[in-house]
Parts: sequence; C-alpha cells; structure tokens
Amino acid sequence: MNQEIQLTSLPETALLMNNAKLAFPKFQAVSDIVKADFLDSIALEIEALGEELLHTTMQETNLPLARLTGERGRTTMQLRMFAQMLRDGHWVEASIDHANAEKTPPKPDLRKMLVGIGPVVVFGASNFPYAYSTAGGDTASALAAGCPVVVKAHPAHLKTSQLIAGAIQKAAVSCQMPDHVFQHTASDSFETGKALVQDPNTAAVGFTGSYSGGRALYDYAAARKNPIPVFSEMGSTNPVLLLPDTLSKNAVSIAKQYAGSINLGVGQFCTNPGILLGIASDGLNEFIEQLVVEMNGIAPATMLHKGILVAYENKAIKALSHQSVEQKTLNTNATVNNQALPILATVSGEAFIQDPLLHEEVFGPYALVVQCRNLEELTTAWQAIAGQLTTTLMGTDQDFSNHPALISMAPFLAGRVLFNGVPTGVDVSASMVHGGPFPASTDGRFTAVGINAVKRWVRPVSFQNCPAYLLPAALRDENPLGILRMVDGKYQI
Amino acid sequence: MNQEIQLTSLPETALLMNNAKLAFPKFQAVSDIVKADFLDSIALEIEALGEELLHTTMQETNLPLARLTGERGRTTMQLRMFAQMLRDGHWVEASIDHANAEKTPPKPDLRKMLVGIGPVVVFGASNFPYAYSTAGGDTASALAAGCPVVVKAHPAHLKTSQLIAGAIQKAAVSCQMPDHVFQHTASDSFETGKALVQDPNTAAVGFTGSYSGGRALYDYAAARKNPIPVFSEMGSTNPVLLLPDTLSKNAVSIAKQYAGSINLGVGQFCTNPGILLGIASDGLNEFIEQLVVEMNGIAPATMLHKGILVAYENKAIKALSHQSVEQKTLNTNATVNNQALPILATVSGEAFIQDPLLHEEVFGPYALVVQCRNLEELTTAWQAIAGQLTTTLMGTDQDFSNHPALISMAPFLAGRVLFNGVPTGVDVSASMVHGGPFPASTDGRFTAVGINAVKRWVRPVSFQNCPAYLLPAALRDENPLGILRMVDGKYQI
Repeated sequence: MNQEIQLTSLPETALLMNNAKLAFPKFQAVSDIVKADFLDSIALEIEALGEELLHTTMQETNLPLARLTGERGRTTMQLRMFAQMLRDGHWVEASIDHANAEKTPPKPDLRKMLVGIGPVVVFGASNFPYAYSTAGGDTASALAAGCPVVVKAHPAHLKTSQLIAGAIQKAAVSCQMPDHVFQHTASDSFETGKALVQDPNTAAVGFTGSYSGGRALYDYAAARKNPIPVFSEMGSTNPVLLLPDTLSKNAVSIAKQYAGSINLGVGQFCTNPGILLGIASDGLNEFIEQLVVEMNGIAPATMLHKGILVAYENKAIKALSHQSVEQKTLNTNATVNNQALPILATVSGEAFIQDPLLHEEVFGPYALVVQCRNLEELTTAWQAIAGQLTTTLMGTDQDFSNHPALISMAPFLAGRVLFNGVPTGVDVSASMVHGGPFPASTDGRFTAVGINAVKRWVRPVSFQNCPAYLLPAALRDENPLGILRMVDGKYQI
Repeated sequence: MNQEIQLTSLPETALLMNNAKLAFPKFQAVSDIVKADFLDSIALEIEALGEELLHTTMQETNLPLARLTGERGRTTMQLRMFAQMLRDGHWVEASIDHANAEKTPPKPDLRKMLVGIGPVVVFGASNFPYAYSTAGGDTASALAAGCPVVVKAHPAHLKTSQLIAGAIQKAAVSCQMPDHVFQHTASDSFETGKALVQDPNTAAVGFTGSYSGGRALYDYAAARKNPIPVFSEMGSTNPVLLLPDTLSKNAVSIAKQYAGSINLGVGQFCTNPGILLGIASDGLNEFIEQLVVEMNGIAPATMLHKGILVAYENKAIKALSHQSVEQKTLNTNATVNNQALPILATVSGEAFIQDPLLHEEVFGPYALVVQCRNLEELTTAWQAIAGQLTTTLMGTDQDFSNHPALISMAPFLAGRVLFNGVPTGVDVSASMVHGGPFPASTDGRFTAVGINAVKRWVRPVSFQNCPAYLLPAALRDENPLGILRMVDGKYQI
C-alpha cells in the first residue's frame, strides 16, 4: 500500500453517497448530447495523461507496455462508444401508446422510456487497470445512464486509479457537470466496500473480481432493507468441447491455438479457457501431447501481484492433489518474483463429474483436459459445470451435423457461445454478451461489455396523460431526437 | 380449504421442477409461431370454460360477475397480446455485428438474441384470480419466453385455479407442446412455496401479493447457492400530489373522482391511492370535506376473504391509533360478513414525515390525507415515502409551471407517473410500467404488465463465428423473420 495515497474512512463513504444522491437528479437533467461530450472529454483527458499513466500502471501491475497501450485504447474507445450511443439516442427504448376513448376500458395516453437508476458504486478490477476499472465499462455505462459514480479503486493500482480519477474530474469540470457526478475513494479496506454497498443512497453496484468478493457484495446488497442490483462478474472456466472429427484432423493446430489462449496475459483473463473436454481417442491424445509440448515451452511470466500468484498456486495445488488428476506439464524453467508456471493437467470424465472442486476456476495459466469415455459422459461433464461467461465448440461441419443436441444446449450454459475460436478476446460491440448464468456473474440477464451494458443502470418509467409540453424530448409526438420508438405497437425510426 | 382438492407434498415439488427442467430445452426449440398458437389456444380454452368458471370464482372470491367478466377478458387479451408479440418476433432484441479483419484487434462475427432463462415458478394472486394468477401476465409472459411454468395456486381460489390449469393443459396437448410445459400445484402450504423457490431447477419467480410474502421469497432466492431473480409485486400507496391551484378550483370534482378510485373493488388494487398530499389551504379543506361526504355515503362491501378483511382492519386500527392521525369518516352503515368500511383519515405533514408506519399500505378502501404547511414540507413528505408503483400529480397548467422540480422528481419515485387522473386501472400496453422501486416491487427495472413483462424471463446470448447454417432464424443475414435488428450499429426493420 502506498503511503502517499489518502485513504477513505468509513464516515466518508456516507458523505460520498450523499453527494452522489444530490448529484443524481441534476445529472439526470443533463441532455444526452452534453453527457456525450463529457464522455468524449474523459477519453481525451485520459489520453492527455500520456506516458505518465502507462508507466505508473506498468510499475503497479507488471503488465507490459503493449498490453497497457492496447487496454487504454479499448477504454477510450468504450467511452466514445457510449458517447455515440447517447448521440444516437435509441438506447432509452421509447414507446408511445396514444389514448383511445373508444376502447373498453378507455385507453389513456401512455409513454415509456428508460431513466437512470441512481448512484452507482464501481469496484476497480485488478486484472484490467483501465478497461474494467476507474474509467472502465462500468463507469462509462453508468455515466451514460446519468448515474453518478463512486469508484472504489483496486488496491493493486491506486496511483493509476487516482490519475484516471483526476482525468474524469477534469472533464467533469470542463463540461460543467453537476458537482460529485464522479467521486473516487482510495481505501484499501474491505469495510469501505461493504459500507458503500450498504449505504442507503447506493442504487446499484458493479464489480469484477473473485467469486468470494462478488458473492459477498451480492449478499450485502440482498440483505439491505431495500435490496439493490449487484453486477458481479466473477470469472469462469469457459469450457471448450473438442469434438471427435476435428480432433482426428486438427489436434496439433488446436493445441497450438489453445496454448496461446491459456497463457495469454499469464492466464489472467476471466475468459481464459480452463476446462477442455473431449472423448478419449488418438486425436485427444495427440492434442494433449502437443499442448504439453507447447506449455512446457512457455517461459514463466510475472502475475499482477503477489496475492494473485499465491491464489493461483494454492488453487492449482488443490486441484493437482486430487487423486484422479494427473499433471502433464513439467515446466522446469526457474521462476523469480511473482512468476507463474503454466500447468496442464488431465482427469477422467467420471472423476470430473463427481467432484465439483475440479469445476472451479484456477485463475492463471492453467487448464484441465477432461477425458470422457463417450458422448454421453462428455455431455454430462459439460452440463455439470455451473454457469459460464463462454463455452466453445471446436468442430468440423461433420461434428456439428453429428451433434445437434450439443449445439442447442450451448446457449443455456453460457452468455457467449463460440465456434472454432478461443474465448479470450472480448470484442466491444452491441452483439457482445459478457456475462453469464451464476456464478459467472450474479445476473446473467445483463452484459458488462458493449452498449447494452448501460441496461444495468436503468429502469423504465411510464408517463400517463402527461401534458405534451411536459414530456421528455424522447417521448414527444414529433420525435425531435429522431430515435427508434414503438408507437402504438409498431416500431418506427 | 376445499377437501376435494389434491394437495401437493414437498417431495412432489422436486418432481415438478425436474419435469420443468427437462421440458425447458424442448420448449425453447419450439418456434415462436407455434408458441403463439399455444397462447391463443389457452385463451380459447379459458373462454370455453364459460359460466362454470365465472360462477366458481364468484363463490371463491366474492367478486361480482361484471368485474370477473372484465378480468377474464383482460386475461385472454393478454395471452393474445403475447401471441402477437411472438408473431411479430421483434422481442428477441436481435443484433448482428459482422466480422472485420481490418480492425485492431480483428472483430469476430457476433450475433446476439434473447433466450428463455429456464423454469419459472408463478404464485397466484388473491386479488386477481385471472389476470395475475394461473394464466395471468406472469404465466403468459413466461410461456412466451419459452420457459416452462409451475403455478402455485392461491389458496383463496383453488377451484378457479384448477379450472384454468385444466384449460392450459388442454391447450398444451392440442398444440403438441412438450410434456410438463405447464404444471399446477394446489398446495396451501407456505413450505411448498419455499421449496419451489429453493429448488435448484427453478430459474426465476413471479409473485403478486403482500410485502411480507414477497420479501420472504426474495430472501430465499437470494440465499440460494445460485441466486435467482424474484419479481415480487408487493403493493404500493400510490401517493397523489394535490397542487394548490387545482385545489382552489376543482376540490369538489377531484374529491368525487378520488372517492371512486379509493373504493374501486373495495380498495383491493395495488394501485389504490392510499396517500394524498396537499398544502394546507381552503381548497384542501374543501377537498377533505367533500371526500368525507363521498366516503360516508359508500356502502360497506365484501372483501375477497376473511384474511384480507382482518389485515385491513388491523392495519387501519394501527394507523388510526397514531396520536396525530384523525379519522374523518364516520360511516355508520352496518357491516356483515367480510365487509369493509371505507375510511378517510388526516395527518400533519410533520407527523407523517416522522413516522414511516404511516407510509405503509393499508390494503382496502382507506386513504390518508397529509396536510403539509408548505411546498417544502410537501416535497419532503412525498420523497420520504419508499418506492411506488405510481405517483400522481393533480394540477393545472399553472401548477405545473410553478413546480418544475416536482415534475422532474416524480420519475425517480415510481414506475408510472400520472397527470390529472387516478392510478387505479392498469392499461395493458407496451408503454405501461407496472413495477417500481423497492418495496413496490423487488426489481423496479421490469414491468409485470404489457409485452415488456417478457423481459423478466430472458437473458441475452451471443454467438461468435457461428456457421451460418447453425444460426437461429432471428440471427440469419437474410432476416427470414422480418424483425427489427441492430446490424453493425444501425437499427434495421
């Protein structure tokens, strides 16, 4: 923990949330066009931090410059994407049903749109110091919805977080946003996070991190007098089905592709493929052999911080100590501070199905190959794993035509279904779903990535017989914003 | 409790939910067009029950024939509305982002749509034996989403529920739906409800009823190993602001209008206006005097069942025993079995703000007029009330122009904001929001009425690089369903 950083005390959290509460109606009154300028301005201010930001984060996270430069680009792109969403204006899901006195009972004039839910608390993520942290997707989408944001910095990159927070605050001032539209707390205390979630003025929470952390926040929120939504994105094992025909033809190339994905960023992605399932065959053996060669050849690399490395080693040791689990890699490279060794292990389908411990995420460069006896066991093993961010089907056209049941089952197991690819790499687009059934996230009905992430911070409001001159612009008959609306049951652009 | 009814035992709930789990993927595979036929067929089968249904329900609920006939019409209309929604097909919120290899990083092909969340448990409501019960909005919207439904009948109208369940099952057979797409349990035990919510195969819950019941179900769901969404609609006091200028001009007509709304259906609507707020004035006095005259003139009427009457009387006695609350009505009509006396009471703004007990719903023909000293006290009193289904502003153009802050505040207090009307009467349309911030409902981000009610039972799924021939119809390039989609960031119809 850095001595220079001013930490936040518990009574201060109440002040932060009260500030946010007072800012909320003022921020809701700001037009989408002006909010868009604010988001664009944040992106510019982050870029203006230049090398200082990148070097501070490199020191704090051990992440390489190229990765951080890319992640910074993703972060500013996300801010600009939400700005564009606000300028397009469609996101409010406006609908209008005109009055009809002839109906029984008579129909009133009803008009509906989305509004912000209230002050949002965002927890920074250790593995994405930019894109899922202080000015990441949670903050950008909540600000787009007109919700004041209070960020609790991740203790692993406090200086980075403060630099970014300064950029946001600078943008808020230059764009004449209401006071306290964005606030930042640098506490490293668990109690601060708890107090923020329990504060009566908090309306929703965004978190990316461990299962234990995400579940704890969810439980605090659910136990409130007025429960609030918590969007905890808690990781995933991202199971991959290796189908027989493709294994018989492409075992070596798939092994090479997956060695890259498993070890990308030292395995520190929530979309890391941690469980690979196949049916015992020469092809599967060939795949395993090649993957072992690849992973033995990968040099140990430095993880984000000591805590993550310790957790990785403990989880891996726990899994490898299982009597049916066999470690295949024998990576003999020497490791230094915070460096993680890539690990590949195998287990039988039967043992895997029986022990849910083996279904848990080992966050780091680790994968477990599940060797099933037949299709039935493969299906059972796949379904036994709890909710996932992604699941991937590796197969030829022949495989897909042989296994229609697997294709139709996949959407119920994960938020994103991939074909012949690797789950690492989360594209930022309207069609991305980054979220999945519990425990991948606490609410699989929403995505944390792409413009639809804004839907986490909104609720619909209906206006009945509202005088025309009092209507929000989105709901006026003349459609001054030129947005998509459902009018009397028909979509109109 | 009726002796003829077969009650459900606890082990049976596990069987019901396992059946529903097995039905889920089969039901998801049924096309929207065929699901639409199923919903239409349910409506026809309910109509075919004819007089027998209406007379059974009259006996069970004390509700008059005209009301039940109207509610049956609303129920079949809702089923047909969801059938139409399925035929239109837009509801899946399809989006397509084509691959772009030129981008850095390269963009994959991503396509997103909504799918059903899994088996849904619906609790019948005592006050709407048709529209919010066995084949009510929750069931209709969940079936539309392709989710198998298990209904726990409300004990107050078990025979009605069984008749309706029979109609649904008949429709399921004639439309060749998968087995167990709809199941019905007639238990009157609280433990059965709890077991249904806790069952690992249950994916979501719909409930309409009391705060204590709705909150208990929410807590069971949140404490699960895998928490699930619970949509409890738990009533509301539907505060009404009586603004000064309209009171000075229209006190008598507003009093007559509100006497009707407060006493509609013996006050047994969750949109019943239970709290009326005004600033002390001659106009407010005139309003109260006229409302007392109207309510004294209303004959006592029979409530749904003894339990509801007892709860009404206890809640009213509790409120009236408050030292600052003054009962204004002196309705001297004799009452017989289960009949409720209309009650109007007044309280000062100061006392109201201080005691949250007075903010609670008194379910029945009861209203409390809050007499505030000034605009500030009115605003504070209004904001002190917790989340609401509706809030209403009664005012002239002059009032609205004098009080812009009240207008902009209203959307944050309730799911529906009305102008110069009464909150009773919930129109079924796309622009209706029936739901509101806690405790009006457990999840104010959703509506229980109108086509958007389907959004409670769905989650988005993204398909990445899916071979064209494996894509669901909604996501194929040629748009065979002719639905609204966002394609590469632009809406297309």
